[in-house]
Amino acid sequence: MSLHKSAAHAPAEAGGDPSPARPATDALRIVQTQWLPARAARDETLFALADGALGVRGGCEESASATQGTFIAGVWERSAIHYHERHHGFARTTDTRVPVADATAIRIFLGDAPADPACGEVLAFERTLDLRTGMLSRRLAFRTADGATFEVKAQRIVPFAHPGLLCIRWTLRSLAYAGPVTLESAIVGDVAAAAQGDDPRFGTGAGLALRITDAFADAHEARLAQRTRASAVGVACVQRHRIEGAVFAEADADAGGARQRHVAQLAPGAEVTIEKYVAYAWSRPGGDEPDAALYKFAQSKLDAAMARGFDELARAQASEFAEFWDDAGIAIDSAAGNGDGEALAFNLFHLFQSANRDGTGGIAAKGLTGEGYEGHVFWDSETFVLPVLAFTAPQWMKPSLVWRYHTLERARIHAREMGHAQGALYPWRTISGDECSAHYPSGSAQYHINAAIAYAVRLYVEATDDAAFLAAMGAEILVETARIWLEIGFFNPRRGDRFCICAVTGPDEYTALVDNNYYTNRMAQEHLRYAASTLRALATRSPDVYSGLLARLALDESEIAAWSRAAEAMYLPFDEKLGIVAQDDTFLDKPKWDIAGTPPEELPLLMHNHPLTLYRHQVCKQADALLAFVLADDSRIDPAVIERSFDYYEAITMHDSTLSPSTFGILAARLGRGARAQEYFRENLRIDLDDLHHNTSHGAHMAAMGGSWLGLAWGFGGLRVRDGVPHFDPMLPPGWCGYRFGLVWRGRKLRIAVDAHCASYELREGAPLEIVHHGERTTLVPGGARTFALRASPVPDPRIPIPGSFKAVIFDLDGVLADTAHLHHAAWKRLAGELGLPWNDAIGEKLKGVDRMASLDIVLGDAATKYADARKRELADRKNGYYRKAIEAFSANDLLPGARAALEAARAAGLKTALASASRSARELAERLGIAGLFDHIVDSATIARAKPDPEIFLRAAQALGVAPRDCLGIEDAQAGVAAIKAAGMAALGIGDARVLHEADAVLPDLAHFDLRKFVVNKSVEKN
Amino acid sequence: MSLHKSAAHAPAEAGGDPSPARPATDALRIVQTQWLPARAARDETLFALADGALGVRGGCEESASATQGTFIAGVWERSAIHYHERHHGFARTTDTRVPVADATAIRIFLGDAPADPACGEVLAFERTLDLRTGMLSRRLAFRTADGATFEVKAQRIVPFAHPGLLCIRWTLRSLAYAGPVTLESAIVGDVAAAAQGDDPRFGTGAGLALRITDAFADAHEARLAQRTRASAVGVACVQRHRIEGAVFAEADADAGGARQRHVAQLAPGAEVTIEKYVAYAWSRPGGDEPDAALYKFAQSKLDAAMARGFDELARAQASEFAEFWDDAGIAIDSAAGNGDGEALAFNLFHLFQSANRDGTGGIAAKGLTGEGYEGHVFWDSETFVLPVLAFTAPQWMKPSLVWRYHTLERARIHAREMGHAQGALYPWRTISGDECSAHYPSGSAQYHINAAIAYAVRLYVEATDDAAFLAAMGAEILVETARIWLEIGFFNPRRGDRFCICAVTGPDEYTALVDNNYYTNRMAQEHLRYAASTLRALATRSPDVYSGLLARLALDESEIAAWSRAAEAMYLPFDEKLGIVAQDDTFLDKPKWDIAGTPPEELPLLMHNHPLTLYRHQVCKQADALLAFVLADDSRIDPAVIERSFDYYEAITMHDSTLSPSTFGILAARLGRGARAQEYFRENLRIDLDDLHHNTSHGAHMAAMGGSWLGLAWGFGGLRVRDGVPHFDPMLPPGWCGYRFGLVWRGRKLRIAVDAHCASYELREGAPLEIVHHGERTTLVPGGARTFALRASPVPDPRIPIPGSFKAVIFDLDGVLADTAHLHHAAWKRLAGELGLPWNDAIGEKLKGVDRMASLDIVLGDAATKYADARKRELADRKNGYYRKAIEAFSANDLLPGARAALEAARAAGLKTALASASRSARELAERLGIAGLFDHIVDSATIARAKPDPEIFLRAAQALGVAPRDCLGIEDAQAGVAAIKAAGMAALGIGDARVLHEADAVLPDLAHFDLRKFVVNKSVEKN
Repeated sequence: MSLHKSAAHAPAEAGGDPSPARPATDALRIVQTQWLPARAARDETLFALADGALGVRGGCEESASATQGTFIAGVWERSAIHYHERHHGFARTTDTRVPVADATAIRIFLGDAPADPACGEVLAFERTLDLRTGMLSRRLAFRTADGATFEVKAQRIVPFAHPGLLCIRWTLRSLAYAGPVTLESAIVGDVAAAAQGDDPRFGTGAGLALRITDAFADAHEARLAQRTRASAVGVACVQRHRIEGAVFAEADADAGGARQRHVAQLAPGAEVTIEKYVAYAWSRPGGDEPDAALYKFAQSKLDAAMARGFDELARAQASEFAEFWDDAGIAIDSAAGNGDGEALAFNLFHLFQSANRDGTGGIAAKGLTGEGYEGHVFWDSETFVLPVLAFTAPQWMKPSLVWRYHTLERARIHAREMGHAQGALYPWRTISGDECSAHYPSGSAQYHINAAIAYAVRLYVEATDDAAFLAAMGAEILVETARIWLEIGFFNPRRGDRFCICAVTGPDEYTALVDNNYYTNRMAQEHLRYAASTLRALATRSPDVYSGLLARLALDESEIAAWSRAAEAMYLPFDEKLGIVAQDDTFLDKPKWDIAGTPPEELPLLMHNHPLTLYRHQVCKQADALLAFVLADDSRIDPAVIERSFDYYEAITMHDSTLSPSTFGILAARLGRGARAQEYFRENLRIDLDDLHHNTSHGAHMAAMGGSWLGLAWGFGGLRVRDGVPHFDPMLPPGWCGYRFGLVWRGRKLRIAVDAHCASYELREGAPLEIVHHGERTTLVPGGARTFALRASPVPDPRIPIPGSFKAVIFDLDGVLADTAHLHHAAWKRLAGELGLPWNDAIGEKLKGVDRMASLDIVLGDAATKYADARKRELADRKNGYYRKAIEAFSANDLLPGARAALEAARAAGLKTALASASRSARELAERLGIAGLFDHIVDSATIARAKPDPEIFLRAAQALGVAPRDCLGIEDAQAGVAAIKAAGMAALGIGDARVLHEADAVLPDLAHFDLRKFVVNKSVEKN
Repeated sequence: MSLHKSAAHAPAEAGGDPSPARPATDALRIVQTQWLPARAARDETLFALADGALGVRGGCEESASATQGTFIAGVWERSAIHYHERHHGFARTTDTRVPVADATAIRIFLGDAPADPACGEVLAFERTLDLRTGMLSRRLAFRTADGATFEVKAQRIVPFAHPGLLCIRWTLRSLAYAGPVTLESAIVGDVAAAAQGDDPRFGTGAGLALRITDAFADAHEARLAQRTRASAVGVACVQRHRIEGAVFAEADADAGGARQRHVAQLAPGAEVTIEKYVAYAWSRPGGDEPDAALYKFAQSKLDAAMARGFDELARAQASEFAEFWDDAGIAIDSAAGNGDGEALAFNLFHLFQSANRDGTGGIAAKGLTGEGYEGHVFWDSETFVLPVLAFTAPQWMKPSLVWRYHTLERARIHAREMGHAQGALYPWRTISGDECSAHYPSGSAQYHINAAIAYAVRLYVEATDDAAFLAAMGAEILVETARIWLEIGFFNPRRGDRFCICAVTGPDEYTALVDNNYYTNRMAQEHLRYAASTLRALATRSPDVYSGLLARLALDESEIAAWSRAAEAMYLPFDEKLGIVAQDDTFLDKPKWDIAGTPPEELPLLMHNHPLTLYRHQVCKQADALLAFVLADDSRIDPAVIERSFDYYEAITMHDSTLSPSTFGILAARLGRGARAQEYFRENLRIDLDDLHHNTSHGAHMAAMGGSWLGLAWGFGGLRVRDGVPHFDPMLPPGWCGYRFGLVWRGRKLRIAVDAHCASYELREGAPLEIVHHGERTTLVPGGARTFALRASPVPDPRIPIPGSFKAVIFDLDGVLADTAHLHHAAWKRLAGELGLPWNDAIGEKLKGVDRMASLDIVLGDAATKYADARKRELADRKNGYYRKAIEAFSANDLLPGARAALEAARAAGLKTALASASRSARELAERLGIAGLFDHIVDSATIARAKPDPEIFLRAAQALGVAPRDCLGIEDAQAGVAAIKAAGMAALGIGDARVLHEADAVLPDLAHFDLRKFVVNKSVEKN
């Protein structure tokens, strides 16, 4: 299949893999020009339309297909789960979203003989999904077995404005046929849920069907009433038509459906047009609305829709999409013209139209596009789908959270069933809010579902400042879900009273029932922290809401304090030897899977191996620990740990889940590995378009679709939210000339554009907004744009050692040998507070390596000009007093790991050493640290005129040592310091984040990793 | 219910809990004298009869019961397992032993009205199971609603000699009724498998039934043919009668069964007797024998049986039982007359009659007594049931192993399904040999099934020397099962290349999917060792068999070597801090279950908690690590580790499995805790008789029944087999005056009798047999008995510290401060070898603490008198030369843990210290060990005239130190040494096994546990 922007540019199709043409963002269309009956099920998924409640797969009106289907989010059947060994607490029933009557059918008859194009010869075919307008249109020319030729043109919309409405405009034109044609427009009622087969990822409600309680058809309308058996959901489907060129002939209705037939007398060139309006109405589960009431509701929808007419409905639908596309603002300028932009738009399109809009349901794993996973909602929704809406259409994120709130009582019951005395445990897979998982090791054991929902609540509240939602629903969700962590975790005396959580399954389903899953513990930690801080903020800001919650949920402050204690004591497994986070307590102790020796036909592993075989190995289905990095603020983690962990887990991850590539792509971008990030991005981007997992026929992969947007914004754009402020750290991946995306954030509309050189941020609408670009905080004002140069790319690989052997090593002090930055920060913060000036960590970050007076200017900010120099000196002195008081307690214990060893190693190797610190207390500190005697020279910063990044201090050190700058190695932790070393003509070793210190010749996480021999050896190798 | 030896002695019954009277071993009978319809299902289990192939529950002929049932081991139905999420490798089908037509019915009609005693008034009732003869007999007097009174007498046997035959002699006597009586003898065919309910321990084949393919009845016989649907097993049931006092009236047959009716004219005192003979014949699964062929086979059985007649059949059956009882030889002389003996006999009775005799099946968890666990066979059979047969009726152990061999191919297929390239994995639960577990975490994940089967093979071969079985079947089972360990385990570089096994479940099902389950690893170790040594022995003894195996199984010597490497590198988790074996890698890191806070109505835990809740806690369903101690030679493990592990795991074990108490009881006896062992023994003993688990109605618990015999023989008798030699270490538990049991071992028949003072061993039949009593090896000769005094009982609790503060501490050297015993042993062993004398570890044990010349006498044994003193001195010198050469390499590294610290602590506390070693090299050793300077005095053993247990050496030390003996603490590891200390009037601290060192005032496992403060503190407390 080929997807490209218009039929006019369609390349020849081979029926094989796609090679989409370059998109035009003003005419985003997905076009298929080959008739491929064997792939009908896949194409019905790709061309499905939905309005958040009703989903209609993209099959052809005039051609029957067993896999065509129509779904209503709220229509599901309940059936018993039979276990051959039922254990206590196992879910007793499961829910299946069963297909409702499908009303897309308009069949052609010549006499009594059906004229299905599938049985004749297709002469021309074109199916177009217009992402911009939401319209599916189609043209098909065919010759019947008897030689008659026709052309069909069809248009279809499922308008958001009329939930449950399907509108079709369908025209049949005779190309070379003269005579009567009967057109049967039907509501097909004898449909049932698909069979399971052996794929646990497909549905299991095989054969479940609605029973038909009424069927009727006359000239005016056809209608069908259905009802589920156990869950008692009633559905009515009513169709009416506007027809030109044919007359009513007959109608009938029975247990198979309802049909209306019209007859036209055609001659070559003549045509008949049917506008078909179909409305669905449905009851709540267990509702007792009679069929007549449902009919009446559906009929009133039809009345309203037909009064507006097809064209006006289509215009309104296009307008709703236009606003979304304007806000989403995505565009990718790909040098290769490889269709990345349309593919991303295609994904967003499906995500947008699948999102629930009325708070009665969640977003299923396959949206409303197919029967995969029985129509169940999973954690994917909160983790990969809702975040996209949070940033692009937060109003449509809310209904899914409202639905979670409405099912909170079910989650409480589920928690009791699982043996928990209090709190709520959201179900692993659900439609109604009840747990539907029949395999707890990879189902209910995934307690991290609770953290995912809390994460989404937080993101929504941050994105919208929707205090009313938080007060009415969000806070209660947070409280009840947080409680579960205290139910299942404990302060473990065998691990220094750290808070441990046993017997859970993390996101990686190739490992189950483990202790201290890093992802779970880390997300639980964030969850508990956020729940506690939210409650504490409510106590101050909304004491009534707070006290109401306490009373209603039998909550008290000691419980909130316990959450904080658990969060701060949370055990996060880390392997000291490998220097990586451990997926769980035992994961790293297992043998690694032989990935290289696994033939492709034995993939995905889950389809070819018993779970035990997978559990027995170090092999991941998908990101696990790494996902916690992405979701739970990776800025708090040593970048070297992130990098080593990424490399380690990447090597053992199969990506057998479509949730996997996006996380790896986002982290690859974070590590400055643009090409790798791009590979992941594109793998994720085209999972459905290219049917990479061979099951798009079951429905589109909503999480992968959401993940592709996250890959753009979180990955290449470096978007993270910290303290409610969007942070960006953009990069341009190889193969792209530029890209842009929009954000809707706290009522503002923002657009970010990145090209080869810079990133620009435009506030298109709303009040001024603070953002952070690559650590630099700025405030955007409406209509204005801020542009920043991109960080250097590619970032040097931090694992490459510096070539060269040196005669001297010049050390910075703060952040390299000892950490006094926090003391400086505390002192500056105290001063800022006294002056009534704002303070945040970003300001602190800017002070790194900057001297006292320059620091003061940064702290004073815009107010700096208001202060006389004398006053400034006085302020600087005041700060210094605070600082000096703090450093009086310094001792050798405050040396950073490896500091003394590095110094001693340098001296042992016969190198000269100097200390080049901007701190005026450098000598005193060196003495307190017990290392003063290890330096040949300590530069007196009082004699230095120009602060780093000026090279002065390093040049002065070299001079004092009597060594040429080119023979010096400078070691620095700050960007300005590295710049100073390089400006001095020295080799620079950075200590810290390779992304930040990209100018350095090499970067190490700390001096504990410093190995002098490397440099010498490399040099001698070079000499040979 | 009350069970007692005869109706004549029956106490008044309360219908409640039993209080059986004391048994008479020559008339072992279980008697019930109350008619308890509400407990019919339980009683049908208790009074069931079986012949290893056919099982008939003990219901009453004349009274209908929905839970009465008849089973044939080979008649089972296959049905699909439906999973709501099916994963790769999950078992696709399960097998259920379905009840066959029940032919126990003889119903009474007065006119057309049925006269079921259950609908009238029961006047007298007595049901007797004669364990001695295998006959079930019954007497029931009742009054109908119309006032007619009758007495029924019934006898029933299911003779071993005619598998598939049921014989009933049933008499109806009129007490006060005159008139016609119709007696309907029926084959009831409309029976189906019981419903599951919510108990995972019951069957799941609810509603499964055989279809009836033919039914016929006439005056001569009635018959019914049935067939399973999917598994295609055909069954025929044919009945005939001998009747006195009634005439044939009519017969009919239909889809519900086949019936023959006879009419008698009764007057008060008159009676009618029906001898009913029922024969079953059945096909193999998938067999196509027509009904006629099965009928014919059943009819030939009837012909043969009826030719012998009821009385002769009963005599033959009694004779077969008599031989068994004679071999088993059990008797318990209980002071309280609490029926322990009958209860144990009752258990053995059921075990014996449930054992398969033709190699076509295993012993199901519930035998042939009920529908629990669907008639499946588990590892329980090999672990708890077959061992009993190994020692009492090894000929009936073999068929179960033959059946395992016949299903080896299924186990190979199962291994492939589970992803293993080679080897065989026996199914967790099965009838046909196919895996029937639908919940792998507590099913297929229990890989230890393979080790259990290998264990049983070993035990059988050791018990019988059946080399033919080993060559034809056993070795192949060993090879194929051993291979799986190399499939799932690996040499873990992160644990020093120890062999680790991940993702298995051990016996304790309250913990699942763990790494390095101690039980599994330890049993796998034994399994691999035995498989390798068996193969190596075959290579020598039966090279043809060996080379045939190699060729047939594509085995080579490198693979066998790999087994040995894995065994010797096996990782056995041990917690250094607690000093116990760890159940698995993570078990001890979980919080403990609040057992005290769990109300009784929430037991068993599995019925009230989700598996995850259980997995999250340190709580055991049953013995796990401890069972490995029992099965895999606990003599190799430090007794202190056994004791601490016992205490630790006992405190967290729920005994929610009926497999649990026997293991705890055996170990409690091993630890000398007679009262505790007795509690466990009796809990296990009466699980079914007292319906302790409230599910005896589902069938009798074969493993618990077997476990009760193990509790006697392995527990109180201390029976273990080492190198094929039975070892005993008997104790008499409180409340008993004595007990005895028989063993059949390598063709010998042995009887062990224990009373308050001694144990005697009598070889009743067969060639001389070597046995070991409490470390003492002896050879029994036919007809003779050897009697030994019992070890002192009770053993002092080793956790009680020695009261008293001391002025001096006198240390033994060998085994206390350093271990030179193995060097001595090696030297003595070398000498013995040179002299052509026997050597074994027991001899080595006896040398502990004994001086050189006395040791020589022990080594020389009976030959000692043959040597002149000079020659003896020469020999002793020769040995000493070997020894001295070995100790030249001694250094401080050879000090035992805690030795130096203990010495230093004693000196630091101001105590005097002396070394009192019988070794002539004591001073040299102390110098080499670097501790000579820590002694105030080292006794020169050359000056000591009398060896320990004489107190001379300790008295000499006290004298040299100038301290009164009562102020000395002596520390010794040998029994003789402790005796010497006590004889010297000192306090004795034993180092080692508290059971051996029972004379010591306190025992520690080693000096690392020596805490001087304890003694001082205790003393001061005493002073207060």
